Amino acid sequence: MRRIEEEIAERALAYVLDPPSDPNDVIQYASPDDLIAVFDDSVGFSFAADAPAERAESIVAAVEKVIEHSVHTSHPRFINQNFAGPDPVSVVGDWLGAALNTTGATFEAAPVFTLMESAVLSKLGRVCGYIPESDELIPPLPPGLFCPGGSTATLYALQLARHRHQPDIAQRGASGERLVLFVSSAGHYAATKSAALLGIGIDNVIKVESDSVGAMVPVALETAIADATADGAVPFAVIGTSGTTVTSAFDDLNALADICEAHRLWLHVDGCYGGSALFSGNHRHLLDGVERSDSFVWNLHKMMGMTQQCTALLVRDPQQLDRCFAGKADYLFQPDKLYADYDSGDRTFQCARRIDVLKLWLSWKHHGDTGFASRIDHAVAMADHTRARIAGSNGEFAPVSGTFTNVVFAWVPPALRPITLDPAAIADLDPQTHEVLHTLPPMVKAQMQAEGTAMVGFQPIAGLNTFRMLFMNSTVTTTDVDAILDCISEYGANAVASAEQN
Amino acid sequence: MRRIEEEIAERALAYVLDPPSDPNDVIQYASPDDLIAVFDDSVGFSFAADAPAERAESIVAAVEKVIEHSVHTSHPRFINQNFAGPDPVSVVGDWLGAALNTTGATFEAAPVFTLMESAVLSKLGRVCGYIPESDELIPPLPPGLFCPGGSTATLYALQLARHRHQPDIAQRGASGERLVLFVSSAGHYAATKSAALLGIGIDNVIKVESDSVGAMVPVALETAIADATADGAVPFAVIGTSGTTVTSAFDDLNALADICEAHRLWLHVDGCYGGSALFSGNHRHLLDGVERSDSFVWNLHKMMGMTQQCTALLVRDPQQLDRCFAGKADYLFQPDKLYADYDSGDRTFQCARRIDVLKLWLSWKHHGDTGFASRIDHAVAMADHTRARIAGSNGEFAPVSGTFTNVVFAWVPPALRPITLDPAAIADLDPQTHEVLHTLPPMVKAQMQAEGTAMVGFQPIAGLNTFRMLFMNSTVTTTDVDAILDCISEYGANAVASAEQN
Repeated sequence: MRRIEEEIAERALAYVLDPPSDPNDVIQYASPDDLIAVFDDSVGFSFAADAPAERAESIVAAVEKVIEHSVHTSHPRFINQNFAGPDPVSVVGDWLGAALNTTGATFEAAPVFTLMESAVLSKLGRVCGYIPESDELIPPLPPGLFCPGGSTATLYALQLARHRHQPDIAQRGASGERLVLFVSSAGHYAATKSAALLGIGIDNVIKVESDSVGAMVPVALETAIADATADGAVPFAVIGTSGTTVTSAFDDLNALADICEAHRLWLHVDGCYGGSALFSGNHRHLLDGVERSDSFVWNLHKMMGMTQQCTALLVRDPQQLDRCFAGKADYLFQPDKLYADYDSGDRTFQCARRIDVLKLWLSWKHHGDTGFASRIDHAVAMADHTRARIAGSNGEFAPVSGTFTNVVFAWVPPALRPITLDPAAIADLDPQTHEVLHTLPPMVKAQMQAEGTAMVGFQPIAGLNTFRMLFMNSTVTTTDVDAILDCISEYGANAVASAEQN
Repeated sequence: MRRIEEEIAERALAYVLDPPSDPNDVIQYASPDDLIAVFDDSVGFSFAADAPAERAESIVAAVEKVIEHSVHTSHPRFINQNFAGPDPVSVVGDWLGAALNTTGATFEAAPVFTLMESAVLSKLGRVCGYIPESDELIPPLPPGLFCPGGSTATLYALQLARHRHQPDIAQRGASGERLVLFVSSAGHYAATKSAALLGIGIDNVIKVESDSVGAMVPVALETAIADATADGAVPFAVIGTSGTTVTSAFDDLNALADICEAHRLWLHVDGCYGGSALFSGNHRHLLDGVERSDSFVWNLHKMMGMTQQCTALLVRDPQQLDRCFAGKADYLFQPDKLYADYDSGDRTFQCARRIDVLKLWLSWKHHGDTGFASRIDHAVAMADHTRARIAGSNGEFAPVSGTFTNVVFAWVPPALRPITLDPAAIADLDPQTHEVLHTLPPMVKAQMQAEGTAMVGFQPIAGLNTFRMLFMNSTVTTTDVDAILDCISEYGANAVASAEQN
């Protein structure tokens, strides 16, 4: 046997080069107990006291079980959540970063990657309009930083907003005034979780009315700000969402920017999901006005297929990063080191930081701007195909919501067709119909998982469980979409039949 | 040419299997401008407008430049900071996790990894004494979670502490009372950065006196608590440090636990660096009392050679994670999904989360408890060898501080030998001697970087730049230690000669 590292790497590479796709299963599902038992004849799943060093052959056998029982997120029938289908170039770029194992905090330990972050953040800053196209391509102070995920970026952005409002916040702590921030009712829960951690409190995150697709109603924001102010609270920030989690709705950023400018509020744009629309000339208008915001978070591990995680937090005024986050640790950021002025670590909260930029840099060099645009256009084309199939289904599928890459819909039992299921209609359903429709998606999904045919997400809309198909995997074809819808039809019918038998 | 993914993977694997070591350079250093120019004849470093898709051959050429100009942190002469020498099994374990690209938030999307986290966290919880050895090996509610780095774990731990003090903090926000926390003056800056982000404020982090090695003086903690209380502040947490960043000092955790119990304060232990001493029967006594703490952060990417990042935040009462962090997002944590009670995502702040456990699980299965112990013992043996060399150097090297794996020392020009340089003596140095000694380390380091012979960190101790050698890379030998000390001698002499010429 070769070295264990080679054996494991070989299996990982084979997976990347030829990932499971139809007719292979998306998942070979097992209960927790069954899953643990699968490892009994190799290394055992758990660690007892005095855990022994296992034989290399047993570890390699365990690796094969890990692969076999993991969810194949690169499979074109994994349409389950807002990441899918990692770009293979990103995967091996991630590998190279891991092999070179360093931290992004200092130029000293990461000379290539410090400059690479600057090059990529500059490009992202130009794409979103924070800096002009004529700006430096590799500025010493880039317009943002990389973070471990969108929630963390939201946390940092809200701290930047609070810091502008109260410049001594870092030193002295919160002043005691009741700060409030605003986000649409369809916005991501990172807003409330961040408010909790910042000591602002979930109660001080004001959920602003959103329309039937999930976009914030600007006039409702105006009202909410006035109400909060009248109530003695101090508004300091608004989160606009570009691509909500469930329906991919886009807030009108220009309308939000007008309001924020009038009230001197920090405008943060949560483009974790939809930010990548900026890559496509056909869709970048969805983010019109983002250049007027103060901060913008963009998860390249969602639509762009970077591996987990690749999050850019962009800021219009990068000087604020240093003012807000600097810790000035003298054992790390020694000013008497070579090129210490390039050190990025004192502009963020983290100390050691994994290299997330290399995979994006390689992928972008490989695909170019045109390739990045194609990925977006393809995703929307798949969603459009899904919408067309639903519209032509003679009531078998009922559209519920969604836009851009997201399609939210129900499968309707024959006895209930045709039925209207937009969010307003859902509220008016009689309890028995609601119950029938509500219990179907979990049953359909359980059968999908049991048979491994597909993975499609479901979630409540106005209290009713509905399916969500959302697209970003570039290997998904209309054949996959059709097969998944057929699968939902079949399992839906099975669920109805089984309910009738009981 | 084969597929670009194969070409990149092949180079990454070759690097992992046969990383640079003597006589190869640790780093081929270049200025930012020179570094950027290196890429001019392949893909170019930056992204202009309309960035094209580059040819595969050019990208592969660029990959070779990335490797060539990165710091070789696996090189046995990289003794620069508190990570080094990634375990090759961890690297390929990281690769497999990236290939299977998923998120740790739900059992649905990460069935194997959810259970794997439980198995590893249970083992870590038993190693640190939070749970008895007789506990479940794969509990549904494990005693902790994985985080992207030690600073983030500190942030979470302090929020847990604040949450116990004020159970409605998440919902209502900070009450307005002036909370204060305590950490030794040698503790990590994650404490102040976390306090800033939480809205507590850097001013409310009270730095407690530490002894000459860097361990907190318990009686000074008692005094600091009394003083703060008398001043109207509300103490809520103490951070004990197990392995300070610069000297690897260990606070007396039993003494701190006594004080915390008497004052009902949360005791958080920052074992980011030194927590791994628990793996060795010879050194685990350094953390005696950790089992009495409330939370404990442990970076396995430091001493254990996991790739960036692999941080476990352990908690004595895991129920508190859910109470403190739950967001109850109904699109993700649907209670009607299969095995949803295993979902870990609502017990932490992050939403999507990279898989950090697989590499640790594989490495632990490969090395076993005994192999993990050996890694620690080897590191301390290398530090002991360094200390012996310094003691026998006839005053050429002057010991300054450090314990366990860390050795802090100065190189002394012949004209100044012998000299005593413990922290107290440093304070008494005459300005001219101070200046001579202070300017040497950056000059020595710059020559190391220029020649690529070694990378050794330096930092001010009591205001004087001193070298720090700290050990965790299992491939470092006494030959490497001797070569590095010889290198410091030579470059130190060069620096003195060059100063005399000017």
